[in-house]
Order: sequence, then structure tokens, then C-alpha cells
Amino acid sequence: MVKRFERNPIITKKDILPSREDWVIECVMNPGVFRFQEKIWLLLRVAERPKQKEGYISLPIYTPDGQTKIIEFDENDPTWDISDPRKFEKDGVTYLSTISHLRLMCSDDGFHFYKPENITDVIQSLGNYETYGIEDCRVCVINEEYHLTYTQVSEFGVGVGLRKTKNWIDFIQHDMIFLPHNKDCAFFEEKINGLYYAISRPSGVGFGGNFIWLSTSPDLIHWGNHKCIMETRQGKWDHQRIGAGTSPIKTIHGWLEIYHGADKNSRYCLGAVLLDLNNPSIVLARSVEPIMEPTEQYELEGFFNNVIFTNGHFVEGDTITMYYGASDEVICGATLSINAILESLNIISIG
Amino acid sequence: MVKRFERNPIITKKDILPSREDWVIECVMNPGVFRFQEKIWLLLRVAERPKQKEGYISLPIYTPDGQTKIIEFDENDPTWDISDPRKFEKDGVTYLSTISHLRLMCSDDGFHFYKPENITDVIQSLGNYETYGIEDCRVCVINEEYHLTYTQVSEFGVGVGLRKTKNWIDFIQHDMIFLPHNKDCAFFEEKINGLYYAISRPSGVGFGGNFIWLSTSPDLIHWGNHKCIMETRQGKWDHQRIGAGTSPIKTIHGWLEIYHGADKNSRYCLGAVLLDLNNPSIVLARSVEPIMEPTEQYELEGFFNNVIFTNGHFVEGDTITMYYGASDEVICGATLSINAILESLNIISIG
Repeated sequence: MVKRFERNPIITKKDILPSREDWVIECVMNPGVFRFQEKIWLLLRVAERPKQKEGYISLPIYTPDGQTKIIEFDENDPTWDISDPRKFEKDGVTYLSTISHLRLMCSDDGFHFYKPENITDVIQSLGNYETYGIEDCRVCVINEEYHLTYTQVSEFGVGVGLRKTKNWIDFIQHDMIFLPHNKDCAFFEEKINGLYYAISRPSGVGFGGNFIWLSTSPDLIHWGNHKCIMETRQGKWDHQRIGAGTSPIKTIHGWLEIYHGADKNSRYCLGAVLLDLNNPSIVLARSVEPIMEPTEQYELEGFFNNVIFTNGHFVEGDTITMYYGASDEVICGATLSINAILESLNIISIG
Repeated sequence: MVKRFERNPIITKKDILPSREDWVIECVMNPGVFRFQEKIWLLLRVAERPKQKEGYISLPIYTPDGQTKIIEFDENDPTWDISDPRKFEKDGVTYLSTISHLRLMCSDDGFHFYKPENITDVIQSLGNYETYGIEDCRVCVINEEYHLTYTQVSEFGVGVGLRKTKNWIDFIQHDMIFLPHNKDCAFFEEKINGLYYAISRPSGVGFGGNFIWLSTSPDLIHWGNHKCIMETRQGKWDHQRIGAGTSPIKTIHGWLEIYHGADKNSRYCLGAVLLDLNNPSIVLARSVEPIMEPTEQYELEGFFNNVIFTNGHFVEGDTITMYYGASDEVICGATLSINAILESLNIISIG
């Protein structure tokens, strides 16, 4: 069902220059994927921080006007909780250990990626709601326009941002489309019964959890008719949190979505779900076991161990060419067969 | 600025029958307010639970088909955290100690309320997203239709529901309008520059907080363009959480909104905020000190001490007749002067 690229990882932090000379890149991961001008493009998430001084930890924050502020503390300061490498806590306030922006790379064959010419390859935080960075961008094509849905992080919370572009030079930034706390948002690439659809992952406080919801929109800006279509499953591989990959793939059997699930130990695997073509709030089938688990060295160990996370792919016939972040540190690729996934969901039999 | 009714509390649990003989009402509170057929109406929140057996605690849950399930446990069971009387926790899952529905009462003078005739006075949970109850309904009138925005609580989380009615007999229930975690939603009662507006209170996880956001809509169903207009304030009376009252009052100086704020000790006071008439994302003024604090016996002690919470009022000239829940247990009333509030915000001087 899954065939990893032989040359994985295909992009690591060594392939990219940090955005400042005194910063270092800790991770490149979780690329959005699209086709443009006969090339295959990745919109990477690049996570950086200042070069660390012996005995100290420093982390960066943007200000709304694009300046940078550094927070530094003694690594033995007991008032800081640094047990999760992705985020640190002090006095009940959470800070990201790195700050992320998005970076473009392109390829002629889907395996070898390079810095593009003639366009700016960096997409940065803009405004009040992105001061802790932007992350995990899905790129969906609707009406020949690229729609970038991504995670905005700031003191106001974690929400979903939207930028649009036709040429990757001129961008329109919209206001937040999903209120905190929400992430992992992907648009369906066509209307269903006159409305646009999106999946997203709000999080509950006390009640609820990290579940996947479906919403409708007349204009891709305003969203409503929210319905929970998938909950986490006690004791299973998707026990703790789940979240959508990128835009669902339209098949004759339904909308096929690859999603990630994390278990009790924050081990991230991938599964699949099939949604009804005419009413995608109906779940036709869902993976009992993961379709892909961390097994390779680069998936088992890195910035955050045991992670496979995808938010981008392209499709040719039966083949999904999927790109994914491994161990929150490097970018890898794999091909998957749509029919094999549908068979694993007991939708078809290919014998 | 504030004049409490002399006969407060005006409604207590003794004035209402529980929805089942084996249940008891613990609290009546937080009424939505509207005018209909030349009367003043309250849409109360009634919080009930089974009659408690000596040594045991039991709490109710609805099933999606309207049946009731009771969860019972030994009051000394150490796996249950019952320190907050409003909600209990076990194994990281939160349960409400009571279950709420909405109840209509009407009045000819605004002081004496009675059970209405000829219409059903009970509005109950409906469907998957209300199995732990419905709470704190705002009633807004738009296009001669009553819009009920209320908190839906279920295993899927805490979100905002919407029902509409013209005659209080026939209701339309819409799908969830604001994803979890969100509550305290009130609509503006007219369009501004072609769009509807709402305020709501999403909650952050790790990042962000319990802040007030503004959103726009073309149809009152789909919401977007989310902007945070008010944060909590460190160390002040509105340190821990804030949330809107009901629909803003249109004045020549701006949209006047009464909101609640809770401090570090969960003491709930009321304050005011003035929003720009043409662009309500602009905050013109905000109370430095509360305009109303718990001072009376019925506000200082009850189901949850030190609470004044409002989500309903009607306006005549300069006078706001406001109804509020006191100590999460009883319903009270007070009149406030719009001009006096505007003066407290340093917007006008009335000498």
C-alpha cells in the first residue's frame, strides 16, 4: 500500500539557509504540495530559533510589525517546563521552542527539490495573529486559485489563516477563518450541492477533544453548519488527537482523506477515512489500523520521535505521491495506491 | 449607575417545577430577555439533577434521542474531583454536575413573572451536541425574528447553537454556528456595511485565553473574519475570563456592550465596552473598574459564590432594565443608566 522514496529524507535542514545569520534551522517538515508552471512544488514549514548559548535556552517571537523579540532563560531555571521539545511553559503560559515560516522549493521530477528562481521563496508571518509563527500549510486549488490554509499561532491563540494567490507573487491575506483553538484545516476542491466544504480540528477545553469537524461555506471566508465527523478512539493508534491531511481525493466511492492520529504516547501514524460524495458528513469507512506507521530511522528519531505527519500530496491515476514530515525534523516522500487504501477500508476488493 | 430591584431575587428555584418528579432544581439563572405580545419575557436557564442519595453524587446526561442516563458515584470516591460545584472530573473527562434546559416566564410589569399560557414553556436539548444540556441563551431580534444563541454542551465539546422562532411555538434549529470551545455569543441586531456581526468567546488551549472575538456573517449561519477585540487583563477584575452579555446597545457614541469578567478567584463582575459604530472591531473605551460587583447577600453566596452574570436586558430611553443570575442560583434585576455608563467610560460628561 505504501512505498517510501528510496532517497528519504529528501529535504533536511542542511538544504536550506536560515532566515537570519544568527539563527539555526531545527526542522523542515510538513510541506503543502501543488503543481505550478509544470513543476511540483513544496511549501515547507521551516522551524528556526537563535543559535543557542551554552547553558541558556532562547526562543524567538515576531512582533506584529515584523520585528523579532528573543526570550532567553537559564536551561536550569525550574520555573520553565521544557519537557516537550516543541513547546515550553512558564507560569501557565505556553511558548513555542521554535518559530516557523513557510518556504517554497520546486522540482521537475518530484524527488529533487531546489530553490525557485524569479519568485520569493519565503512566506512569513503577517499581523497580530501570527507572531509565534505560521505552520503546516495545505494548498488547495479552487477556481484556478491557490488557497493556503495554515496554522496561525500568537498570544491570541492557535487559529486557521487563509491566503490566496494565482501566481505565487501576489498574495491576498484574509482574516482568520477558524477561531481558536483550531488547526489542520483543508478545503474540498469543489462545491457540493452549492456550498464549499472544509475539514478542521478544533480542540475542546474540559469537554470534547481533538476531533475532526466538517463545515460549509458560501464563499470560503465564512464557515458554519459545523458537524463532528470523527472522534479519537480510546486505546487505539488515534487515541489522543486526529487531524486532516490535505484536500480529500475524489473517487467514485467517496471522498478519500488521509489523516494523522496520535496515540497516548504521541506516536503519529496515518490512517484513511472515506466520506460520502454527496454528503461528506457521512463517514463510510475509517481505518481500523494505520495505513502507515513510523518504522524507518528518520521517522523513529528526530526533533520529536515517532512522527509521520502529512499535509500534502499530488495524485496521478491510482497513485498518491505523498510528502510528509518525519520526526518533526525532515521531509520524506512515499507513494500510496488509492485502490489499496480503499481495499484496506473494505470498500473494494482487488484480490 | 446601577439600581437593583428592591424585591431581588425575583425568581428562585421554588418558583419552578423540575422537569421530572425525581429531579430537583439546583439553580435558575442567566435569562435571555425579549418582548413579545406586549409582555416582557425571560428565557431562564434551569439547572437540575436527580434527588441526591445520602453518600452518593449523581448527575444526568441526555442521550441524542431525548432519553436520560444517570451517572452515580460514591461522594468519597477519590477518582472524582468535585472541588468545583459546577463540574466534576474523572480520568481527565469533565462532567457537568447539573444539566440545564431553558424555561420561559413572562411578566406584565418586568418584576412579577409567571408561567405563560398557550405555549410550551420548556425548551429542551435536541440532538448530538446538547446531551449535557443547553445554557445561557441570548435572544436577539433580527428581521422580526427571534434568534436564540446558546451554549451547547456534549461529549463533542462546548459550542454555540442557534434556534429561530417568530411565534415561540414553531422553532428552527440550525447546526452549530461556532465550533468548540466557544460560548457567550450575541448577535448585533442590525447589519453593518452589509454584514451581520456577532461577538463570542472562544477559549485557547495553551496559547491564547478566554477572550472576546468579533465575527461577520452574510446569513447568520456562516461566520468568518474573526478578530480578537478584548483580552483579559492581568491582575484586574477581568483577569481570568471575559464574555459578552447580550446584543450591543446602539448609541450615537458607539455600540455599548455589557460584559462579564472573572478575576483570579472566579469572582464575576460586570463591565462595559464601547465599539465603533461603523467598525465594531475598534474598541473606543472599556471599563477600568467594574460597573457592578457582587455586594448583596444573594450575589455573595449561593450555588457558586460571588457571581453576577447577565445575558439579557431591554432598553427604554436611557434606562437598561437588566436581568442577571446571582451566585449561579437565582435571578435578579437591576436598572442601569446608559449615560452614566458612558460617563464612567469617559465618553460623555453629564456633570
